[in-house]
Amino acid sequence: MGENLSGAAEAIWQYNKCIIDAIYDLVPAVKPQIAMYEQFGIEGMKTYVKTLEYAKSKGLIVIGDVKRGDIGSTSAAYATGHLGKVNIGGKQFRGFDEDFITVNPYLGSDGILPFIDVCKQENKGLFILVKTSNPSSGEFQDQLINNRPLYEHVGKKVAEWGELFMGHEYSYIGAVVGATYPEVGKVLRELMPKTFILVPGYGAQGGKAEDLKHYFNDDGLGAIVNSSRGIIAAYKLPKYEAYGETGYADASRQAVLDMREDLKKAWSR
Amino acid sequence: MGENLSGAAEAIWQYNKCIIDAIYDLVPAVKPQIAMYEQFGIEGMKTYVKTLEYAKSKGLIVIGDVKRGDIGSTSAAYATGHLGKVNIGGKQFRGFDEDFITVNPYLGSDGILPFIDVCKQENKGLFILVKTSNPSSGEFQDQLINNRPLYEHVGKKVAEWGELFMGHEYSYIGAVVGATYPEVGKVLRELMPKTFILVPGYGAQGGKAEDLKHYFNDDGLGAIVNSSRGIIAAYKLPKYEAYGETGYADASRQAVLDMREDLKKAWSR
Repeated sequence: MGENLSGAAEAIWQYNKCIIDAIYDLVPAVKPQIAMYEQFGIEGMKTYVKTLEYAKSKGLIVIGDVKRGDIGSTSAAYATGHLGKVNIGGKQFRGFDEDFITVNPYLGSDGILPFIDVCKQENKGLFILVKTSNPSSGEFQDQLINNRPLYEHVGKKVAEWGELFMGHEYSYIGAVVGATYPEVGKVLRELMPKTFILVPGYGAQGGKAEDLKHYFNDDGLGAIVNSSRGIIAAYKLPKYEAYGETGYADASRQAVLDMREDLKKAWSR
Repeated sequence: MGENLSGAAEAIWQYNKCIIDAIYDLVPAVKPQIAMYEQFGIEGMKTYVKTLEYAKSKGLIVIGDVKRGDIGSTSAAYATGHLGKVNIGGKQFRGFDEDFITVNPYLGSDGILPFIDVCKQENKGLFILVKTSNPSSGEFQDQLINNRPLYEHVGKKVAEWGELFMGHEYSYIGAVVGATYPEVGKVLRELMPKTFILVPGYGAQGGKAEDLKHYFNDDGLGAIVNSSRGIIAAYKLPKYEAYGETGYADASRQAVLDMREDLKKAWSR
């Protein structure tokens, strides 16, 4: 394996494959972050696609964390590439083919609706950024508009957009609300009762299990808690150092088991 | 050329090459929209890279319209991939290598600063979305916070971020303000005196030359007016139909010349 872009991309692919093999029977979904592949250019993107395909072959739902979003015609192109099919000479082809993707709401409805159109055709879904997990998310998202923070206005809009493509009880159009702002999770849960909430920020970013109850509805459903670095880089944590670098996949499996226990314990309290 | 993803990507590359050959002596910069390539998956991304490289070989500045933006660690990866270099075994490699990219501000400072760090290392720049050109941009961007629309708050922040990486008179950190909201352009021009404004929406989206004066400073500088479909798909417009489909590159050249005259006329009024 060369020390170049394709060598690095191949190494990441092998790494991912072993992690998926170690955890696919324990989790419902994986959320690859496309930026981590995009930084290696085309070679990285190939590994992103291989990772999506492999995860799906193992029965996992794939949430592409791509945070795309643009004006209508451009959002339509992103939707085609990530969720839909492109038409070439009467035949149809798929570009990236995630099951769900994350999208950015800053451009408003006409930047979102083309994604929803493709979701309907494909039985796929979205998670729209509402309140993000990062420290400075409040700079704009927390600003008050008619005495309510921007994230509530966005959340209300997500609930409306969600009505356009309902499943049985929940919508295919979900929201992203960071684990790091539990009081916000509580408010948004109530504002968006039929919306699945993708909750990043558990673990490495500091979100704690006991804070996450409010992201769920009383039926115990309605949220999907995500841990990224806490799982895929578990072997780097003091807690799992006994696994060593070569035991990284086993460390990840243990981290998934521990996360599950942690969430369960919070529920039984 | 097969009727598949690689055939379509090759056709787009040939199309782009002829357009660049026809217009590179007339314009300072091109702004490829990555979504239009991303919809063809990996093959499309390869054409995006080839287009960037060819445009730069012709002396053009390349503005990648990628609208990326995420939490800090992820924005750092996007910045590495699009503007910087990734380190592999002590050697450095470039992924996409645009000169400027567009970014989305919804996540606040810690989603933006990693891009600025890489810009400083590479002498490159950004255009941060402030007020976008699409019809529903006002849904969130126009909402009043302390009696001023969100886009003004974002604009003020862009001017602050801009101070972190100044050129001679203007900052390397620019703003996107759509041509379709000229009254907003005027306000933001005053709020961000040292900020280059990228102005999409001229032509196909309805922005008119006489409305664009306010996007410039009194020195005649400070804005870059973008026409996308109006140039690259000029042959489809009634005005240029005499060129026919095979004369598309000549139609594009004429559309550039006409756009230049249109802007000049507006200035001399």
